[in-house]
Amino acid sequence: MIVTVTLNPALDLTYTVDALIPHGTHRVAAVAERPGGKGLNVAAVLHALGEPVLATGLLGGTTGGRVTALLRENGVPSAFTPIAGETRRTVAVADPADATGFWEPGPRITEGEWAAFVSHYRGLLGRASVVALSGSLPPGIPPDGYAVLIRLAAIAGVRTVLDTSGDPLRHGLAAGPDLAKPNALELSALLAATDEHQSAPDSDLADAGRALAMGARAVVVSRGPRGLLALSGEGAWRGVPPERLVGNPTGAGDACVAALARGLRDKTPWPDLLADAVALSAAAVAAPIAGAVDQDTYHRLRPTVRVETA
Amino acid sequence: MIVTVTLNPALDLTYTVDALIPHGTHRVAAVAERPGGKGLNVAAVLHALGEPVLATGLLGGTTGGRVTALLRENGVPSAFTPIAGETRRTVAVADPADATGFWEPGPRITEGEWAAFVSHYRGLLGRASVVALSGSLPPGIPPDGYAVLIRLAAIAGVRTVLDTSGDPLRHGLAAGPDLAKPNALELSALLAATDEHQSAPDSDLADAGRALAMGARAVVVSRGPRGLLALSGEGAWRGVPPERLVGNPTGAGDACVAALARGLRDKTPWPDLLADAVALSAAAVAAPIAGAVDQDTYHRLRPTVRVETA
Repeated sequence: MIVTVTLNPALDLTYTVDALIPHGTHRVAAVAERPGGKGLNVAAVLHALGEPVLATGLLGGTTGGRVTALLRENGVPSAFTPIAGETRRTVAVADPADATGFWEPGPRITEGEWAAFVSHYRGLLGRASVVALSGSLPPGIPPDGYAVLIRLAAIAGVRTVLDTSGDPLRHGLAAGPDLAKPNALELSALLAATDEHQSAPDSDLADAGRALAMGARAVVVSRGPRGLLALSGEGAWRGVPPERLVGNPTGAGDACVAALARGLRDKTPWPDLLADAVALSAAAVAAPIAGAVDQDTYHRLRPTVRVETA
Repeated sequence: MIVTVTLNPALDLTYTVDALIPHGTHRVAAVAERPGGKGLNVAAVLHALGEPVLATGLLGGTTGGRVTALLRENGVPSAFTPIAGETRRTVAVADPADATGFWEPGPRITEGEWAAFVSHYRGLLGRASVVALSGSLPPGIPPDGYAVLIRLAAIAGVRTVLDTSGDPLRHGLAAGPDLAKPNALELSALLAATDEHQSAPDSDLADAGRALAMGARAVVVSRGPRGLLALSGEGAWRGVPPERLVGNPTGAGDACVAALARGLRDKTPWPDLLADAVALSAAAVAAPIAGAVDQDTYHRLRPTVRVETA
């Protein structure tokens, strides 16, 4: 079973309007509600692929209850730790040209709630083969939160994939995750903050090397339409999508993490793993909403992704 | 007890942002949640004045549950009929200049739900002295919905205040409410649609007369900063606020209805009733959110409102 951890989930609302008129009043034509947060997207993609998955993290209040109900409707198994605060909403107002986003602040997590989650998580590790840790940390969780969870997984013999940024990424790398999946921007921002060197353009390989030096056992850098770069003790590879897809890039990184988590579980060889992650990311771009993948695109692209040693 | 009816309530969310940037992503600095819908504003104002009140109407789903919880937190007694649909949200994005509104569509009410509400409402009439009927009708409720409720109240000897627009107002007037409170624009729009005559400018008195002819026993026309006009079999009066208030006009009409409902219960003479309604409307403008009144403004203005025969 793959466990996905979402410590800062959301109820994502999408409002469709004819046009966005600042200071106007809009009658919303259509409302879509879905569970939001990167780890929940990873869980949704794994579930859509038929892989055994369990979503965990922190949920609270009426909005948290709604997220739980939507996960149940979607058939995604979940076991979240309850919190006193109200889970945040995000509102995306979609007009024919683009979307405008409003992100509520996440609730503050108490020390007791964090301790309760860590204990719950330890219990889940006995049933897990891989844990995927995704997204930002809500206020109240220490910046080494993911590092704690990575070390506990390692003790239990469970492999870890980490997809975050900033301080939680820095601390997380030091805890030695089996795989870190920053995007190129997140990684270069972290390295720029960590030392005084600016990353050179197209320095993803050098950046990945520095992430390895910081503690990760393997690094996959997502590079948008330019594909993925993997670096581990076994070698370095680049995987490039065979065509440029037009669509919604939100959630492509989460589909990538879903593929990586599955590959880590199955000990898939790197070139195959990277090809799978490239195809699944592209399939997420081809699907209209984050957390969904277009299965036709996935199966069509999967055999045609080029993976080369870097 | 005054019963307020809200057939199309909402969960009102206000997001405070630094600036509204179309197609940008906004981290919302502050989120306020409150029960929304005109009848719920009327109930909140009556409760703030210490008047016995019961809020009823239709609520459903997670959002409806949240509205019920907020009413409980605010101490406003409520007894709503449950519906299968999800109560709508409204989102107001407030920047330093103004607000931008997004209104979700209301849920569709089934025939059975409407019948269940009517039965529930009949039960409440035994404990009510006045019923206030406010706002739009959600999809599925026939346009004569308020007319049905007004006739049932009359049979039970309960007085009625109607604050709506369009077809529900036209049907409602025909049912003979004790008091109708359209605003000047709603009334002239209705009359323009009902016959071929356009209202002349400043024809509020003539418009009110036509509303009486359509069936209402009394009419109070709200005229924004120009105050209120009352017309009944006993005479005609104008009430004007002694000063022009700067603030939030949303909810001023609902505060007016609260004052009118209380006055109808207490058989307050028209000049006093109108002065009270003018002062309470102004106190709503002086309060930052709909459903609230600034008590200092109310008590300061109450003795100084000028009411003259029209």
